[in-house]
Amino acid sequence: MAITVVGSVAYDSIETPAGKRERCLGGAATHFSLAASFFTDVRVIAVVGEDFGPRQEAIFTKCGIDTRGIERAKGKSFFWSGSYLDNLNEAKTNQTDLNVFAGFDPKIPSEYADSEFLFLANIDPVLQRRVRESMPNVNLVAGDTMNYWINDHKPALLEVLKGLDILLINDTEARTLAGENNLVLAARAIQAMGPKTLVIKHGEYGASLFHKVDGKESFFKVPGLPLHEVVDPTGAGDSFAGGFFGFLAAQKEQTPAAYREAMFYGSVMGSFAVERFGTERIANLNHDAIDARFNRFIELTHLD
Amino acid sequence: MAITVVGSVAYDSIETPAGKRERCLGGAATHFSLAASFFTDVRVIAVVGEDFGPRQEAIFTKCGIDTRGIERAKGKSFFWSGSYLDNLNEAKTNQTDLNVFAGFDPKIPSEYADSEFLFLANIDPVLQRRVRESMPNVNLVAGDTMNYWINDHKPALLEVLKGLDILLINDTEARTLAGENNLVLAARAIQAMGPKTLVIKHGEYGASLFHKVDGKESFFKVPGLPLHEVVDPTGAGDSFAGGFFGFLAAQKEQTPAAYREAMFYGSVMGSFAVERFGTERIANLNHDAIDARFNRFIELTHLD
Repeated sequence: MAITVVGSVAYDSIETPAGKRERCLGGAATHFSLAASFFTDVRVIAVVGEDFGPRQEAIFTKCGIDTRGIERAKGKSFFWSGSYLDNLNEAKTNQTDLNVFAGFDPKIPSEYADSEFLFLANIDPVLQRRVRESMPNVNLVAGDTMNYWINDHKPALLEVLKGLDILLINDTEARTLAGENNLVLAARAIQAMGPKTLVIKHGEYGASLFHKVDGKESFFKVPGLPLHEVVDPTGAGDSFAGGFFGFLAAQKEQTPAAYREAMFYGSVMGSFAVERFGTERIANLNHDAIDARFNRFIELTHLD
Repeated sequence: MAITVVGSVAYDSIETPAGKRERCLGGAATHFSLAASFFTDVRVIAVVGEDFGPRQEAIFTKCGIDTRGIERAKGKSFFWSGSYLDNLNEAKTNQTDLNVFAGFDPKIPSEYADSEFLFLANIDPVLQRRVRESMPNVNLVAGDTMNYWINDHKPALLEVLKGLDILLINDTEARTLAGENNLVLAARAIQAMGPKTLVIKHGEYGASLFHKVDGKESFFKVPGLPLHEVVDPTGAGDSFAGGFFGFLAAQKEQTPAAYREAMFYGSVMGSFAVERFGTERIANLNHDAIDARFNRFIELTHLD
């Protein structure tokens, strides 16, 4: 069943200990869509500038992603430049040019209206809420955010959280949002804000699922894959979200067992994302590689 | 099969956000022994002062631990005082009084000579090596260390590593010892120093096993248990080591499958350790509670 995702499609210039890339395709909606496209139909809502050409478009369409909701505006696409030279776990931002993204007013193509799943990638919560309200009939809504919105736009974010079934954020974001250092207590506090399901991403240490099963607290954990080189961490979290939500959307029923398996597919897609710069790895992936990686995760965690 | 462990038996004064305790029983050999005693016979080599009385002794003997190797010396026992008020993941040391430990010269009782397993808890590598050489017939030797020995006593430590089958250390220690930030590469470098098996403990994020199976690199991961309160982190790593090595020693053969299961028992015992101050939780544990906790770990990680 189809997922509509709203978020950024951007150009990233990235420097890591493994090298550098200038203006490669990036953005949360891009990374999410590509990862999710291996599991289900994906439809993107974003805005790009005149510098977004057929070569970028082809990265989406090759993966069967519906780009009719990617609006072309006069000007340049969102641009971000960052470095991981000091710390692979956290980017140092050198430059952020919102460009056409500054005036982004998400429009939902009529062809997207029957989407049953909605993913609100990390953008201004005012826009997240607007898209959420424009798609009242979706079955399941997941979203992401970041410290900037938590710290400086909390009231708007809290409104978004009320309309979310699933929130995916990282450790620091969870602690900041809840004002609580213990992750179990932080998760409970966040669940009380709206999202019944919370996925907390721990970077190289994997991710935790805080869920309710038959009204009772339920936990599940997936590790990160041991990798001898992390080429580029950019988009790992969005790729995790794409694998997780893409797998969920592809299931007939979103059972507790499906959520647990989705956690593995999230970690699978996150582990691929960091192996090359930008979208290079995931845009060139196939189902055999995904299956093999999934099996590696099972061997990594299961006794038998 | 019996484990002999050499290390500290001490008094700890501990302050955490959950409260404080003065002079409770602590020390690496204590935490290790108590955790391991639920799986196999344990024999301790340590030195204590005149302040170590029948009440402390009873904590060991109640768990069936052989204390004939705990030497009584004139003076006071090793004393440590620390605080976790700022950071539950890392203690701030307020005071360390080596006392009788300063002159510790480990003596191995003849009754310990047939031990098949040896654990060298975190003490001066010169002493670790001396004990290792005094017990040439053990089948499997595991050990721990800390940043102080890695930074300031590296040559002595490297000699110890040559004689270890298994090393258990934390992330920071592994990175420092290897001089390598990536944990997979760090693990490879440390394995080349001697221990074919490496367990890297990630605190609340669990632990990773770096192992060889049929000459090939093999990985396994266990998470930490989601806990809504960590009362006292002191001894969590030693309790992990006790559960891990205790379970291994209890198996007829130390197969790759046994190592994986041992990782879960390590995390089980580590998760108990932090629920109360000092030894309070583990000294009062029973096998039913351990089995139930093990099952929680399986539910936390396994798809079916």
